[in-house]
Amino acid sequence: MSPRYAIGIDLGGTNIKAGLVDRAGRVAAKLARDCEPQRGPDCVISDIAAMCRQLLSARGAGLGDVVGIGLGSPGPLDLDKGLILKSANLPGWHNVSIRDRVAAQAGLPVVLNNDANAAAFGEFWAGAGREGGDMVMFTLGTGVGGGVILDGKLLHGSFANAGELGHMIVVPEGLACPCGQRGCLEQYASAGAVARRLTSGRRDDPGGRPRPQVADGRELTARDVVDAAQAGDPLASRIWSEACRYLAIACVNVQHAFNPATIVLGGGLAEAGAVLIDAVRDEFRRQSWSLCEDQPMIIGAALGYDAGVIGAAGLAWTSLSL
Amino acid sequence: MSPRYAIGIDLGGTNIKAGLVDRAGRVAAKLARDCEPQRGPDCVISDIAAMCRQLLSARGAGLGDVVGIGLGSPGPLDLDKGLILKSANLPGWHNVSIRDRVAAQAGLPVVLNNDANAAAFGEFWAGAGREGGDMVMFTLGTGVGGGVILDGKLLHGSFANAGELGHMIVVPEGLACPCGQRGCLEQYASAGAVARRLTSGRRDDPGGRPRPQVADGRELTARDVVDAAQAGDPLASRIWSEACRYLAIACVNVQHAFNPATIVLGGGLAEAGAVLIDAVRDEFRRQSWSLCEDQPMIIGAALGYDAGVIGAAGLAWTSLSL
Repeated sequence: MSPRYAIGIDLGGTNIKAGLVDRAGRVAAKLARDCEPQRGPDCVISDIAAMCRQLLSARGAGLGDVVGIGLGSPGPLDLDKGLILKSANLPGWHNVSIRDRVAAQAGLPVVLNNDANAAAFGEFWAGAGREGGDMVMFTLGTGVGGGVILDGKLLHGSFANAGELGHMIVVPEGLACPCGQRGCLEQYASAGAVARRLTSGRRDDPGGRPRPQVADGRELTARDVVDAAQAGDPLASRIWSEACRYLAIACVNVQHAFNPATIVLGGGLAEAGAVLIDAVRDEFRRQSWSLCEDQPMIIGAALGYDAGVIGAAGLAWTSLSL
Repeated sequence: MSPRYAIGIDLGGTNIKAGLVDRAGRVAAKLARDCEPQRGPDCVISDIAAMCRQLLSARGAGLGDVVGIGLGSPGPLDLDKGLILKSANLPGWHNVSIRDRVAAQAGLPVVLNNDANAAAFGEFWAGAGREGGDMVMFTLGTGVGGGVILDGKLLHGSFANAGELGHMIVVPEGLACPCGQRGCLEQYASAGAVARRLTSGRRDDPGGRPRPQVADGRELTARDVVDAAQAGDPLASRIWSEACRYLAIACVNVQHAFNPATIVLGGGLAEAGAVLIDAVRDEFRRQSWSLCEDQPMIIGAALGYDAGVIGAAGLAWTSLSL
């Protein structure tokens, strides 16, 4: 009997998402639960295996119906050995052989990849990039993640760190990044960065002219930056237009490096929709060369928060089925 | 009888280089002649075929001794159809079916690629990158060319323009580039750019303090910039250190995009040797992240002006032999 499903797991620092996904990328069942990494790998791995069993029983399926498990995890990872080396999002985890331990407990083969790569593969396999051609994705969340799909396969590079596009330098000697560099894309065009820049800009300039304020003293979000920019707030407008401009420069650099057919923008900042996509496209047209007709399509992600689960399942389908 | 040689052709706007290259990348015979593209494709193609016959007779070899011809050409090209679409270096050439016409006249199969890609493949196959792993090359000549080798194969991308690394933007709203962009790497770190910047800087500031001058009113070269910088000329020092700094930023961006094992610097500017390589390495160490141990080796090219011929032959060896 040929398998009907793959299981996709999106392991994060705050929660674990899991889905049963068919060969066409449709989600037949899904689940989520808190992760609590501080309980240690044993508990989390046992939770993942339990979620797999729950998904199968929800659809009346057995192990024989499943091609295997795709697992997207925070990194850095050792893909050959199937290890989580360490992770800012999984404090205290070191050299955890997540791939083989999940496989043993769930009774299914497991393919491991990092979370940004899994989400990018999801968009390629069943989302915004499914028309084909090489695809590059920027995930604009707390930081900026990236994923690169060439000839239908995720690019890993010689050190398994390819596609770390949030750490491309777009401003020489620019804002300091916790990674140790200055001027990283992530410091200008992540949801986290625009919110942080508005917060600190308002703190530094408390006596500025009246402008829309956020109630309740809650922390500002990327959504507040978009709203304030659209309402004409000059600081928010500058922060937003810098985000779009530097993202467009990163797209130009990706164009000349990989020459992809499609660039997909996803993550929290991309929830702004046309306000982001249109501005990045305009800036891209202004900044990119006129020498060749090799402009990629720049489009929004299609799968939302399911991209990681669907992409992990897609990796299982493409790596484990014959 | 298995073939002993491939023929590599490096077609340029001013001359044509050709070599008979064995399976190990050694040049058994070589030739060069003026190109004179204004005489038109018919004459140039017939010259190329004549050079092939000359190489074979120089080694007493026949067509059966040759696996095929690799041809590196200025672009843009249509690789599928084997066409030179047009080229700034081959004025008046449009949609020339160079691959099939050379094959017909020489009586051998031909693989076509662009000149920067052929040179990069040469360094990967038989030069600075021959130890293996993914490799990215910057060719720092009149402009800045690039080539990217992943899993042993040249990257072309969805529009056959991948690796146009000279047009990555390293300075937002920086110097204008003839390509239509601003702040391209090519405007700071090519041999042409540093010479041009010293020339125009001295013209704009004729009354500056005494400094090394070039005799005879001849045009300044990249070598003059290096010499003047080493002699302490402040303008030349600034131009040189900017070239190294922006090249290092481009290396950081290549690190995060492709994550290669090796970055090779070649072309006229790289003839400065350690003065360039050491400065770029120092700047790279200062600018690159400390999050992962994924720093590529940054090294000078090993094949000099033969890289194009050897690389073209290498493409014939790897594409045409079984």
